[in-house]
Amino acid sequence: MQIICAQYIISGGHEIPLIDSAIVVENGKILDMGAKDDIVSRYPLAEIIDFGDSIIFPGLVNAHTHASMTIFRGLADDLPLMTWLENYIFPVERHLKPEWVYWGAKLAIAEMLRSGITLFADMYLFEEEVIKAVEETGIRATLGEGLFDFPSPNYGPLEKGLALTEKLLKDYAGHPRIKVMVCPHAAYTCSPDTLKAAAAIAERYDTLIHIHLSETKDEVALIKARYGQTPPFHLDSLGLLNERLLVAHAVQLTDEEIELLAKRQVKVAHCPESNLKLGSGVAPVPALLEAGVCVGIGTDGPASNNDLDLIGEMRSAALIQKGLTFDPTKLPAKDALNMATSLGAKALGWPELGRLVKDSPADLAVIKLSSSHLTPCYDPLSILVYSARAGDVTDVMVAGEFIMRDGRILTFDEEEAKKKVFEISQEIKTLLAGQN
Amino acid sequence: MQIICAQYIISGGHEIPLIDSAIVVENGKILDMGAKDDIVSRYPLAEIIDFGDSIIFPGLVNAHTHASMTIFRGLADDLPLMTWLENYIFPVERHLKPEWVYWGAKLAIAEMLRSGITLFADMYLFEEEVIKAVEETGIRATLGEGLFDFPSPNYGPLEKGLALTEKLLKDYAGHPRIKVMVCPHAAYTCSPDTLKAAAAIAERYDTLIHIHLSETKDEVALIKARYGQTPPFHLDSLGLLNERLLVAHAVQLTDEEIELLAKRQVKVAHCPESNLKLGSGVAPVPALLEAGVCVGIGTDGPASNNDLDLIGEMRSAALIQKGLTFDPTKLPAKDALNMATSLGAKALGWPELGRLVKDSPADLAVIKLSSSHLTPCYDPLSILVYSARAGDVTDVMVAGEFIMRDGRILTFDEEEAKKKVFEISQEIKTLLAGQN
Ligand SMILES: [Zn+2]
Ligand SMILES: [Zn+2]
Repeated sequence: MQIICAQYIISGGHEIPLIDSAIVVENGKILDMGAKDDIVSRYPLAEIIDFGDSIIFPGLVNAHTHASMTIFRGLADDLPLMTWLENYIFPVERHLKPEWVYWGAKLAIAEMLRSGITLFADMYLFEEEVIKAVEETGIRATLGEGLFDFPSPNYGPLEKGLALTEKLLKDYAGHPRIKVMVCPHAAYTCSPDTLKAAAAIAERYDTLIHIHLSETKDEVALIKARYGQTPPFHLDSLGLLNERLLVAHAVQLTDEEIELLAKRQVKVAHCPESNLKLGSGVAPVPALLEAGVCVGIGTDGPASNNDLDLIGEMRSAALIQKGLTFDPTKLPAKDALNMATSLGAKALGWPELGRLVKDSPADLAVIKLSSSHLTPCYDPLSILVYSARAGDVTDVMVAGEFIMRDGRILTFDEEEAKKKVFEISQEIKTLLAGQN
Repeated sequence: MQIICAQYIISGGHEIPLIDSAIVVENGKILDMGAKDDIVSRYPLAEIIDFGDSIIFPGLVNAHTHASMTIFRGLADDLPLMTWLENYIFPVERHLKPEWVYWGAKLAIAEMLRSGITLFADMYLFEEEVIKAVEETGIRATLGEGLFDFPSPNYGPLEKGLALTEKLLKDYAGHPRIKVMVCPHAAYTCSPDTLKAAAAIAERYDTLIHIHLSETKDEVALIKARYGQTPPFHLDSLGLLNERLLVAHAVQLTDEEIELLAKRQVKVAHCPESNLKLGSGVAPVPALLEAGVCVGIGTDGPASNNDLDLIGEMRSAALIQKGLTFDPTKLPAKDALNMATSLGAKALGWPELGRLVKDSPADLAVIKLSSSHLTPCYDPLSILVYSARAGDVTDVMVAGEFIMRDGRILTFDEEEAKKKVFEISQEIKTLLAGQN
């Protein structure tokens, strides 16, 4: 049994942060919470970990990423999407190796822990390698193998991808930190039959489907030209829009489509920085939230962001909506944090996560207030959302276990991951040089 | 004589970063530059400082701030501008003390150095205290006392503010690190006579005028109602629009006004995050740059940002333009860095700064590449603009002197500044509690 305390606890369950409070952790869960003095006197045998001048907050949830794409970080920027994909990403992905995905994911997990992330949604190739990284590092994930109609460098033809998805669903059923979802890439890379097959598996195993949806104007135009309907209505006609669907982006939506997503209880992963950087636009987040849609926040892949910093992403999400609506009261700090914690957790199939309350799993992160840019602290919520940076996170706990302590990752060798990804980047450079 | 080298040098004079290169620093200036081996053999007596796996880049320029407002950081957010000002900022500013401004500025300078900033533009009250902080800390600044028609807690009536400005202009003429400018706050707080008086002083002393301009739709409407013209044309009719004018914000501009600013060689300090957070909108930066306007990047005050991180600001500047124009090629990394270095320096009256080239002053900063979020490094420019964070800066040199080395500020006691601002925040809390 451990007592964890700090000057401030943002529980996510209260608007007003708790001052000089403590959390009692036992068997991976929060056994009790309260004023520090009271808790300490009531649990005299517990080990006390006092973070002092710090903020404890619920572990953040990265609602959409392709973690292993750290291997492509900064490979090319400021390009039209198709030039970027066709000249840089696709030619290398054709040669993708399982060990690249493994080390890319491990480096990504190091970066995510340093941003206070304790749960992430992942869709990529060779996803078993990501699973291995998640198992070893102690973080949580909801993830699945990317499915599309062209041959995959991992599984080859689509049927094998569907079979692989079923295998992962069976192998990891009941895993304490991993949930497998069905991941058709997008409506423009998956035929109606593929989408229906994906939906059937998700229904059979009662799990999530994760797909990119309405990311760009081009996508909307393409789907409309091909199927006569915009992406949300196209998916609805195929029976995909339901409470099991988690869509990434949802940038180009009409009011009617927002209503449809709300009615069908579809979940959204909002990726503000990727949407800006790739020139996709800005998702109508306030309207989605007002309509009652569950909206989490994601970084998208580190090749189009170019980081995995959910603290920065939360801030960007809040700032951009204020600026675009000319209304500084839009998406206040508490809403941004809620999206980055409980709403994200619910969207990823972990409704018990994202808040620090009695009986919830002990997934939390800590920020030290000692830096100049976090001084003074009138309001810890403001400091966390508007002033803090990923580098300020000192400690991370998942399911009651510390995986980062005082700036050091405990569960794996971060230096090794950096070294391996550096070596992979040299291979990728050689590959790209060879084909030009 | 010192030789400073690193794996990458972004000179700002080249699009392609230099690899394994070195800079020779003597008497505060760059004496020579070149390949490391060559430089080392040609200057055998120089001390060698090798930053290894790092990026050396020109010191960043914060083109608009109110540094001392660190004392208000996070005091209140997510409020309509007038509520924020009238219920929080103004009631406290009425009781502003010189030592608050001094310690607020010192804390701000610590934060700015940690973001790689070596030059900043400042406008506030009790500006002599900011000057004291700039002198002691070794950073550079272009600054002036805020002027407006109502009585100032510092100088009282306006005439005394104009006299104070003249005194500062005389006292700091020829200072190696400080330039004084004339700072009428805005067209809505300064009468035409005040603006003309400010312009006359700026002309007499051949120095800059700094003013907030066209920040919000409300400001434009107010000036139009009061004077029959929009802010830029109003200032032009008073003779203020010329190469000596540095305007902050410039958000709400028509094409005609952009042309006017370009024709008059007015400089702009673009503050993207403050403009978003306060709900002001997004400045038409690509159009301003295309028209030939010199546009720097500023953080604005830390009470409306809520930080002084110019690396993050540079990234936000680039991302937001891509997102809003649906064009990922807009405002590429090199343009964002150029705005944050040479264009900003030129706007602040230091055209010799902002590039690392032979004979330029040695103002530079260093980022270590060892963190997970900076791995791998295909392109140091991409890493600096899109992946780096303020906390990654390890070393800062101004005029050939290190003021930060290996993460430690050398010229002043950062801990003392934090402690003092914490104490000031307690006073401010008491003040606000007393009046409610
Ligand atoms: Zn994605
Ligand atoms: Zn300002």
